[in-house]
Amino acid sequence: MLNRVDENIEKFIKDLDDDRVIELYKNISSGKKLRAKLILKIADNQTEKAIILASIVEMIHAASLLHDDVIDDANTRRGQKSINALFGDKTAIMFGDILYSKAFYELCNFSTVISQSISGAVSKLSVGELLDVELSKQFNSNVEKYFDMIYKKTASLIEAAAYSAAFLAGYDSDKFALYGKNLGLAFQIIDDILDITSDDKTLGKPSMNDYKEGKTTLPYIYLYEKLDSGEKQRLLSLFGQELNEKDKEWIKQKMETSGALKECFTLVNKLGNEALQSIQEYKNSDLEKIIKDMIQREY
Amino acid sequence: MLNRVDENIEKFIKDLDDDRVIELYKNISSGKKLRAKLILKIADNQTEKAIILASIVEMIHAASLLHDDVIDDANTRRGQKSINALFGDKTAIMFGDILYSKAFYELCNFSTVISQSISGAVSKLSVGELLDVELSKQFNSNVEKYFDMIYKKTASLIEAAAYSAAFLAGYDSDKFALYGKNLGLAFQIIDDILDITSDDKTLGKPSMNDYKEGKTTLPYIYLYEKLDSGEKQRLLSLFGQELNEKDKEWIKQKMETSGALKECFTLVNKLGNEALQSIQEYKNSDLEKIIKDMIQREY
Repeated sequence: MLNRVDENIEKFIKDLDDDRVIELYKNISSGKKLRAKLILKIADNQTEKAIILASIVEMIHAASLLHDDVIDDANTRRGQKSINALFGDKTAIMFGDILYSKAFYELCNFSTVISQSISGAVSKLSVGELLDVELSKQFNSNVEKYFDMIYKKTASLIEAAAYSAAFLAGYDSDKFALYGKNLGLAFQIIDDILDITSDDKTLGKPSMNDYKEGKTTLPYIYLYEKLDSGEKQRLLSLFGQELNEKDKEWIKQKMETSGALKECFTLVNKLGNEALQSIQEYKNSDLEKIIKDMIQREY
Repeated sequence: MLNRVDENIEKFIKDLDDDRVIELYKNISSGKKLRAKLILKIADNQTEKAIILASIVEMIHAASLLHDDVIDDANTRRGQKSINALFGDKTAIMFGDILYSKAFYELCNFSTVISQSISGAVSKLSVGELLDVELSKQFNSNVEKYFDMIYKKTASLIEAAAYSAAFLAGYDSDKFALYGKNLGLAFQIIDDILDITSDDKTLGKPSMNDYKEGKTTLPYIYLYEKLDSGEKQRLLSLFGQELNEKDKEWIKQKMETSGALKECFTLVNKLGNEALQSIQEYKNSDLEKIIKDMIQREY
């Protein structure tokens, strides 16, 4: 069914009737389409409407990544050169606006409940990105600010996708919204963990990059809480710096021995279980598998 | 009534419930609100709906200017420091996305005819901006390309605003769309003319800046057509360059003596008259005045 989503997005792009835009779209590397899969697995009748909604949400996600890559000066995306690296920031900004506006145009064919759920999530996503930039200016020891940021930046669109797909299918959409929100939060925390525990090869990018880039992710916040005052100073002194092997080793070791990583895993488990409970009555094995695979991947 | 538009936008911004966003909005300098005025003057019943639509379109226009200023590396906007100059490109990009998405969110409360007219115009506007960047890479002697670009970049949102306001009021919306489109095109051509004929003080920015920035506006296209081959070479050699006083004087003089400017004025007149004819039956003196003032300003 993901093929039909791709075909549908290509059709939307062609509607815009601009050769340059069609050319630009060819240079976007295809992702895992987590949000489209989620929509199709919730609205399991896989109607035309569900496929169109999945296409819209993937276009919105692609638009947000285009702007995200400009903001992060990222040269690669999904192992390929990013649009900003290939064609410059200006083109990437405008191409993002084109994908956003076409997605909103198509969204107007849905009920207000769905179109406002998705467009409201885009506002949150953009506010979350602003927060991320703000938080990256100094070490952040505030857990609530971290959760507010990842909820908005990462989880809100997944939440809205799940909510809208459930609404489309006539299910209790609030229950699926909670599933989507927790999936999004857990997904981000795992991303944060992998940045610390994986090697460069597995990640496809340099490991322990987050902290260097000024991102105080959850493992660092928990670690900071557990260190003695001398160690706290050492951790703070490394914030935003290029880390040498000795520093990296020290952080990794402290993440393990302090229990900071374990605390993150515990939380991922809790979020996953809440997500499963929320949609228990629907006995949707695909959605259960997504959560179980995510949790299992970590141990 | 424009006060109510401002109040309404402030309410929309507050809905987003983020102090940083409220703070950023305070730093946007208020413009002439041409699009809001147009909507209120067409939907002359000035219902709540018209005021909300005017607020939405002004938010969209503000969002487009935020991205536009990042793309043009502009440090000022309406005589004040631009958001990108004050807070950086990243913040300006995201704040633009926030205004766009909130505008789309509110647009969902309107009929599909209106919401798709406005969101479709935003796609055109962004494609127009891409075209503008493309066209600025070398001298453009193609009149059609120029019109395609200014239609999309400048006229399409004004056209959609007029169309939507007429639809809201129950008028023949296609007639008002033509009025809005021609107003937008004429407006842009006058802007292009003023860049050449006005002094720095009147413009509030350096005069003859367009050509230096690689923008082959209509007067330059017409001028090029009228020059002999030696003069053509001189004009081409100045494209994208910092112009000295002698060059500026030469261009100004040639613009007059060749009849290039006169041809632009003739076209503005033609567009204005078409606009007036299109809505003649409605005898809306406010809308007639907008066109007449615009034409008169030029002579």
